[in-house]
Parts: sequence; structure tokens; C-alpha cells
Amino acid sequence: MRKIVTLTTDFGLSDPWVAVMKGVMLSIEPEITFVDISHNIPPQDVLKGALCLGGIKNFFPEGSVHLAVVDPGVGTTREPVIIKTRRYFYVGPNNGLFSFLDSPVEKAVKIANIGLLQPQISVTFHGRDIFAPAAARLFSTPMEEFGPAEATLEKLSLPEPVIKENIIKGEITYIDRFGNLFTNITAETLRELHSRFPNSHLEVKPPGVKIINGVSYYYHSVASGELGVIVNSLNLLELFTPNGNAGECFGLKPGDTVTVRFVPAK
Amino acid sequence: MRKIVTLTTDFGLSDPWVAVMKGVMLSIEPEITFVDISHNIPPQDVLKGALCLGGIKNFFPEGSVHLAVVDPGVGTTREPVIIKTRRYFYVGPNNGLFSFLDSPVEKAVKIANIGLLQPQISVTFHGRDIFAPAAARLFSTPMEEFGPAEATLEKLSLPEPVIKENIIKGEITYIDRFGNLFTNITAETLRELHSRFPNSHLEVKPPGVKIINGVSYYYHSVASGELGVIVNSLNLLELFTPNGNAGECFGLKPGDTVTVRFVPAK
Amino acid sequence: MRKIVTLTTDFGLSDPWVAVMKGVMLSIEPEITFVDISHNIPPQDVLKGALCLGGIKNFFPEGSVHLAVVDPGVGTTREPVIIKTRRYFYVGPNNGLFSFLDSPVEKAVKIANIGLLQPQISVTFHGRDIFAPAAARLFSTPMEEFGPAEATLEKLSLPEPVIKENIIKGEITYIDRFGNLFTNITAETLRELHSRFPNSHLEVKPPGVKIINGVSYYYHSVASGELGVIVNSLNLLELFTPNGNAGECFGLKPGDTVTVRFVPAK
Repeated sequence: MRKIVTLTTDFGLSDPWVAVMKGVMLSIEPEITFVDISHNIPPQDVLKGALCLGGIKNFFPEGSVHLAVVDPGVGTTREPVIIKTRRYFYVGPNNGLFSFLDSPVEKAVKIANIGLLQPQISVTFHGRDIFAPAAARLFSTPMEEFGPAEATLEKLSLPEPVIKENIIKGEITYIDRFGNLFTNITAETLRELHSRFPNSHLEVKPPGVKIINGVSYYYHSVASGELGVIVNSLNLLELFTPNGNAGECFGLKPGDTVTVRFVPAK
Repeated sequence: MRKIVTLTTDFGLSDPWVAVMKGVMLSIEPEITFVDISHNIPPQDVLKGALCLGGIKNFFPEGSVHLAVVDPGVGTTREPVIIKTRRYFYVGPNNGLFSFLDSPVEKAVKIANIGLLQPQISVTFHGRDIFAPAAARLFSTPMEEFGPAEATLEKLSLPEPVIKENIIKGEITYIDRFGNLFTNITAETLRELHSRFPNSHLEVKPPGVKIINGVSYYYHSVASGELGVIVNSLNLLELFTPNGNAGECFGLKPGDTVTVRFVPAK
Repeated sequence: MRKIVTLTTDFGLSDPWVAVMKGVMLSIEPEITFVDISHNIPPQDVLKGALCLGGIKNFFPEGSVHLAVVDPGVGTTREPVIIKTRRYFYVGPNNGLFSFLDSPVEKAVKIANIGLLQPQISVTFHGRDIFAPAAARLFSTPMEEFGPAEATLEKLSLPEPVIKENIIKGEITYIDRFGNLFTNITAETLRELHSRFPNSHLEVKPPGVKIINGVSYYYHSVASGELGVIVNSLNLLELFTPNGNAGECFGLKPGDTVTVRFVPAK
């Protein structure tokens, strides 16, 4: 089985810190294969890191180790942890970064066994001194040996959409490189509400923008320059404009409210 | 033989989409080695993607699979294709992205066999659901099994330089990170015209800039702050300024005309 | 033993040049594992490239080959070199890029044997035509075969801090993505001076900023919005502001003087 380690950090791609973590891991476990998820998480933005990491879902092979370091509390008492889900391991700081995992947590331990870490542990770079060696050693060491104590995971949460009769009040939670705006409204919620209001059509209203009628099946069913909604590849309601940046063109951003209304047929 | 997949996309390096494609491929074919060509193609800029992909020429090992996704028409009827050239396979949307390949196309098929793709195919992320699994399965499945129908490839073209007597009218086609400006004028064309006007020297004239006399052999044969021309590593006439950004310093950009004149010796 | 090649360049991540170098290396030595250190060195900034490369220290496995190309003099007489230290090989232009290596140089040779390089050597892309093939062939060819002549390495240097009685005058040498500012003042120098002035506390004074009292043990021991100093993971005195960008917030940058004073207890 291939030994896969993914990396998600706010270290950027200009400094050598990501490479140093990889060097540490290759020195311990020479056969690791790395896949970079993102190193462009905005500095110290734990929520954005958590959402990015959450985007990988179950698309990696079982047994992959996901190393994530967005760590504003480095050097404080926030705990270094190893987490096991059904498919994966996760390694990093217990600060909310692991709030949106692929599946429920089966076990989480605090990393405490310094014999498994770098010989010297700095106060500013636990990615190198704690998390990288722990990730690399997970391929040969049971997670229980990293520390006896179970960890209680810190959790960030996205606001849940609020449903009231025929209306869903949700919000934009993520904007990607293309300016597509993901909401917290799932395809499942839409289907459920539609089943309650079967003879209705759907209207979507983001702030400061006119009402959008109906969900598109393709980006290209909407005219150029118009805002549309679609159920995206993560099964979330998404705002977009074809071949354009919906965030920029319509001044929309994470945190903005999106209202969906099932309008009865007359 | 090593199983090499290169990736060229407009997905950027902040979102997890590139990693998700790699996860899908590793889940199918664990021994793939990835090489990123670029993920910074400007969103939906198919021509720039095609030129970037064209830059790899024959420098990769035979049998490499080049996955490219710049796909403004995702979800429409534009075809997903697999292309074979003498050395390589290419996988992606048939929208012009494969206009400048390493060598002539030997065969191109439309991807139609959904048994070889992701179990569920979204309308917004064919990189993940169609192209990544097709690329990974090419190491174990003949391309004919992906679909019976041959594809007619969409082609973008760069303007050809126009030659009239002792004058070549070409244009700037690409600007790289250093601000070096590649033209569509090849070393071959220069040599041919020079053989017709053997007793001549060469003048190059970009818009709004004084005439450049002669082709340099090294970037450093030109004085600091001056614009020079050189035959670059792709055998194209290139405008540059030593240790500076020629595009910014001289206000030059892709699309600008460049005139080369062979001036008879008096 | 795994064949590891790291890459440090100023080529950026938008053009295909880095991938082309990897393709050349894989064509020669199919089993190479690549680790990117940085491709975002500012164009032609040899000092920044040297500092970035210096940041990897001894964190990679023994036998790793470090390929570095920041090469404003490409095509001139600056020499292509292979360097051996106790743990590593380095390959690139002899222009100061190899000034801060992991350990003293044991041997350095000028690359001269064109039989070991690309069949055609361009004047603008020695990364592809000289350095990449040399790096790849180092796994099978003794470095002496690349050229008989030993090279005298060009060296850049950072200003050494000046110590006068109880005062160290150092300077900022590097700013990272977080806006943390590294100085040239080492933990060792601090310890030595402290041993000479044992009953003293320490004051740090960057330009235009009020005096900082004492070294922090954690980023979080300093109040939000304040500037602090810490001994960082490279054992250097570093200026920071917790969860913020110290460079931007306090207008500090590489080249700025930092004065450390050991103030006698009254």
C-alpha cells in the first residue's frame, strides 16, 4: 500500500517551511508520497483551513494521512492531536482545524510521546518538530503509542440554514478561485422542502441582487453576465456566473445571506 | 515503467480541487507519479492553457499522460477526449486546449464509457469525475475502450507571421514570469530569410520602442535597461531586457506586432 | 535509497519551465522523487534564493540532490557547478546561490562534460539543458566525471552583527509569509553576551518602534497588536506580532537595523 501524506497549511509557497516538513518526513519514512492540498490558507485562518481540508472528502485512498498545520496557537497549551476516522488519519493542532472531516471521528489522542518527535522541539514550528514526525511515524507506529490520553476535539461550525415553512435562510460559506460561491444549503434540504411544496417553483435571493428563478443544470444555461444557482460537485447550492467571477461581479462573499423560497404555483 | 501524469489546470493553488483529482487517480492507480505543469492558467483561458501545455514538448518520458482541464464549457456538449500522439496521451475537454501538442495526433476518441469514470458524474467538476479517472485508467485500459467514436479536435491557432520580401511581420504570443516576450517567429524562418538576403543585417521593431539592431547571443550582451532580442530555448525570437521585466518596462504584451527587417548592407 | 531532488528557482508557478526540468530528469532517471522548496524566489534575486535554500539545513535525507536555479547570468561565463557537502549534493550556477549550505563544502567541480548534458544547450535555459541533466545523472555518475576542474565558489554574505560592550547591532535579513522578521542575531550570541552581563535584562530596538523588553518564549506571551521578539526555529532572534504581520504593521523589512542591549539591573 502506498504511504500517502497530504499537506494543508498556511505556510505559503515562497518560504522553505513546507519543504522542510517533507524533508523531516522523508528522513523518517523514505517511501512517503506527498500530495499538497493547499498552502495558501490565509495566515492563521483556521476556519478556511478546515473547510479546505473538508473538501477532500473520501476521494483519497484509505489509510492516507492528512497533515494540517494552521496553528495560530503554536507554543501555547493547545494540544497536538492524531485523529482516526474510518478511512484516514489526521495530524495537527486541536484548534478547530478538524471540524469537517470525511466521516465521524473514531478515536483522537493527544500527541505526548516525545520519543516519536524531533529531538528538539522549537516553540515556533511544531509543523516541523511535532506534526511532521508524527505523520511519518503513523505508517509504522500505532496511534496509541503517541500518547495515552484521548483528546476532545475543538469544533468550529458553519451556521445551519434555517427553514421556516417554504423558506430556507442559508448563507455563503466559501468562495473558490473562480469566484463561485458555495452556500450551506444542501441538495438534500432542497429536495426535502420541494417534496413538501410539490407544486412550487424556486426563487433564490442573495443580498443586493435580483431574484434568481430556478436552479440551473449547467453553468451554460445562464446568460453571460447573469447570476445563476446550481447544485455543485459537493452537493451544495452554489452561486455562479458563466465564465466570470460571481463574487467580484455581484459583490458577494462568505457570510452573506442567501434566501431560497418555494413559490406556490398560481 | 513509471506511470507519470502531468496536470495543467486553471484551478489555482488555494482550493482543494487539484488534490481531489490526485486523490481520485491514486485511488484507481496507486503508483502514479504526478508532475504539476501549471495550475495558474487564468480562469477559462483555453489559449493560455494550450500554450502552456505546448511548452512541455518532448521533454517528458514516453508514455506520460498529460491531463489538462481548462474547461469553461463543463457540463455542455463539448466532448471529453483522449488523444494519442507518438509519445504521449492527453486527456481533457475538446475545446482547443490540445492545439499545440508535441507531435501530430495519431488518434483521438470521445470518452463515453461511463463504467470507466466516477460512479456519479457532477455537472460542474468533470476534472474529478471524468478526466482524472480516465487518465488513471489509461495505464491499464486501451484508449479504444473509453469510447468507440473518434473525435475531431477543436483547434486554436496563433497567427502565422507574414513574410513579404525582406520583412517578417510577426507578433508576441506569450509573456512569461520574467516578462520575457515570446514571438511567433521561429529561428527557422529567420535562417531562411537570411539565406535569401545574405548580405544584410537584421532590425527588430516592436511598437512604441526604438529599433533593435541584431540578435543577441546572450541576455548579457545587451546593456541594462535596453531591450534586446534573442533566439530562446524554444527556438523562437524573444524580446527581453537583461535582469528586468521587458513586458513591464517597455509596455509590451501578447498581441503586439513585431516587425523584423533584413536591411541590405550598403 | 530514495533518489530525492529538491528544486529552488525563480521560475514561478505559472509557466511550464519547472515541469520541463522535471520531465528532463525523469527521462534520465525515472525513479526520482521531487520536493519543491520554492519557485517564488523574486526574479534574479540570488541572495533571497540562497537564504531560502539555506533554510533546509540538514532536514533532508543524506544523499539528496539540491537543484537551484536563480541565474541572472545564464549564458555568460559564470560557471555551472556541482558541490558536495557532508550530506548533500548541490547543482546550479556559481553566482552566490550556494552561500549558506548545510555544512562546509567538501568539493566543488565545474560542469564541463557535455556528454552528460542535453544534446543541445540553449543560451537562455541552462536549468533545462545543464543543471537538470546533471542533477539526474548524479545518482549514477561520480561528480568527478562532470569536469576535472575544481570550482572556487562565489559567496554572498549577510552582515555579521557587531558587538560592542553590552550592545549587539544586528539587522533584519529575511521576512517570511507571515511577516515574521528574522535577524542575523543568533541564540548563541545572545547567550554569550548574557553570560558576560549576567545581572541584566534585554532590550530590543528596531527602527521607528518602541523598545521591546525581554525575549518571549511563545508568540502568545505578547499582547495582540504589540511587537515581540523570540528565538525562532532556526535559532535566530525574530521579530513578530501575534496573529499579525509584523513587517506590515510596523513597517519593518530586511536591511533594517535591530539593536539589542543588555541593561544592567539597578
